[in-house]
Amino acid sequence: MRRERATDMPANRRPPADQNVDSSAVRVTVLGADDNGPPGLDRIRAQADVALAWDEASLRKALPGTDVLLVTDFRTESLEAAWPAADRLQWVHAASAGVDQLMFDALVDSDIPVTNAQGTFDRNIAEYVLGAVLMFAKDSKNNVRYQQDRQWVHRDTETILGKQLLVVGAGSIGREIGSLCRAAGMQVSGIARSARGADEVFDVVHAADQLDQHLPHADYVVVAAPLTEATEHWFDAQRFAAMAPHARFINIGRGAIVVTDDLVAALQSGDIAGAALDVFETEPLPAHHALWGMANVLMSAHMAGDFIGWQEALTDQFLDNLARWRAGEVLFNQVSKRHGYAPGNQKANA
Amino acid sequence: MRRERATDMPANRRPPADQNVDSSAVRVTVLGADDNGPPGLDRIRAQADVALAWDEASLRKALPGTDVLLVTDFRTESLEAAWPAADRLQWVHAASAGVDQLMFDALVDSDIPVTNAQGTFDRNIAEYVLGAVLMFAKDSKNNVRYQQDRQWVHRDTETILGKQLLVVGAGSIGREIGSLCRAAGMQVSGIARSARGADEVFDVVHAADQLDQHLPHADYVVVAAPLTEATEHWFDAQRFAAMAPHARFINIGRGAIVVTDDLVAALQSGDIAGAALDVFETEPLPAHHALWGMANVLMSAHMAGDFIGWQEALTDQFLDNLARWRAGEVLFNQVSKRHGYAPGNQKANA
Repeated sequence: MRRERATDMPANRRPPADQNVDSSAVRVTVLGADDNGPPGLDRIRAQADVALAWDEASLRKALPGTDVLLVTDFRTESLEAAWPAADRLQWVHAASAGVDQLMFDALVDSDIPVTNAQGTFDRNIAEYVLGAVLMFAKDSKNNVRYQQDRQWVHRDTETILGKQLLVVGAGSIGREIGSLCRAAGMQVSGIARSARGADEVFDVVHAADQLDQHLPHADYVVVAAPLTEATEHWFDAQRFAAMAPHARFINIGRGAIVVTDDLVAALQSGDIAGAALDVFETEPLPAHHALWGMANVLMSAHMAGDFIGWQEALTDQFLDNLARWRAGEVLFNQVSKRHGYAPGNQKANA
Repeated sequence: MRRERATDMPANRRPPADQNVDSSAVRVTVLGADDNGPPGLDRIRAQADVALAWDEASLRKALPGTDVLLVTDFRTESLEAAWPAADRLQWVHAASAGVDQLMFDALVDSDIPVTNAQGTFDRNIAEYVLGAVLMFAKDSKNNVRYQQDRQWVHRDTETILGKQLLVVGAGSIGREIGSLCRAAGMQVSGIARSARGADEVFDVVHAADQLDQHLPHADYVVVAAPLTEATEHWFDAQRFAAMAPHARFINIGRGAIVVTDDLVAALQSGDIAGAALDVFETEPLPAHHALWGMANVLMSAHMAGDFIGWQEALTDQFLDNLARWRAGEVLFNQVSKRHGYAPGNQKANA
């Protein structure tokens, strides 16, 4: 949707012609959280010579001779550390929506394209968000508690019809959230880097620098933005104070977009009424953290996007792009290394 | 939608002309659960001479001379007991969707029209059902438990996109449930007294006597039927055995449509995977009941329809119908006393 500088998204370097014939000539290293490899690994092995890595040491060993790096652990810090060992790397694919851990200077400054898993998690995340909205409206967490206490306690509850949802981050995930919540009867507006008019999802999309003007009008604020220098610690005490006291805050983006201590304080003081959090500054969240014990907080373990079968789906998506790469075609889901995320709808337009 | 016998829905008896002028000449008795009267009582008092009743004794005292009975307690058994004292009753309005407690022989056999609160609760109930579906799909109850235990436990979760929802009872409430769940991406079919074709909500509506053929294909089964002789204890061991082992059962109709012991057994044996229950054979459900302690059950206190402001909305609805009655017009939301519920869309057609 946005125009990128020509240098921002490097064209794919066509692989040597003989690699199109002999699959074993393509070397793919899979960087995961452990040495198991992802589900569907056999299907990658059928297409390429595969090495596994799971930490800095194993990655340093695997990188020499690697053409393509598939990063399945979105939390990894190993690539930056092992980077000097990448002697012929031509493409990095992140099997995740967020690529924040890959935006280190050496990779950003290189002409190696980075692609991501845009689209894969959108629907499940949207369902998670609508579910959280309905849990707040219907006081569902207290239903669970009253059930545990065997207490029959009738309450009147809120409707979501016509309620204002502000989606901060109007990219692929944010649009799917807006689309589903609009279908369920909510009024949906968005926040993006720059303002744009109404479309079939958003009543209006405001520019990020106008956020504080629009926060007070939202019944629900959902963070669906990537973690970048511009969004890190964006939601602090000032943002929460700008929200309505009855409003709920939902974060399915990245934990570090929030100043967690400020969020805890806002929930305790009544600056906001509740929060649903799938992501945290530190993951797993330590057991002693105040958020665990808060009655007005819904928590989950960074799983909003992870539908049953997601790992197989990610392997399929990588293999689709690998086929393009081998054919010398333009890769889809290319990340703008300048902005730290992939602009929307690349696959559809490709 | 269905054709009724001419005698099934009595035409309104036009009140004496002088009652159209002098509001105090209309006597309205309000039968509630206590002696407080409903919110908005003053607005009824502005239109009529009002008496309050809350049990058989107070109702016996109030009924003589009463023209219109407004029943705000859907659980009341007082009207049947006090019925002989109704010496000039012309209309009974139930401020509830269910009228099962009013379908006793003396009232059914009379030509006194019964109206109900059809439409008022539809949207909130539909939101409750979609919320329950999403809580099952996203394993939200376990998120609450893990949070209580301060445990970070990642799981993959289900999507609702394309899942089959079978709405048992395709009336006003069932249609709103189907409409909302279809908008959220589910496949929706219905069960009604007689079969009918696809429309904008239902892929198909099957006849009630075909229920067992269609239960195995549903991922979610929602009971939105009225309690009548035909539906009492309809969902028994045989119905639950016909459902898929992964399916969830949601009841927002009436508890007595279910054989509760059979439901508990089906949940324990794995005949079905879970249940969301807002209504019970005995309400409040006793503290010792097995359902309270079941991990795969979501419970609430007969509150699915009760949005904030519902009592005022019910008073408004009664006053709308009272104005019609005083003008000698046909009442809306007339209950078919033969079937025990109000056919859909009467107000829109009136």
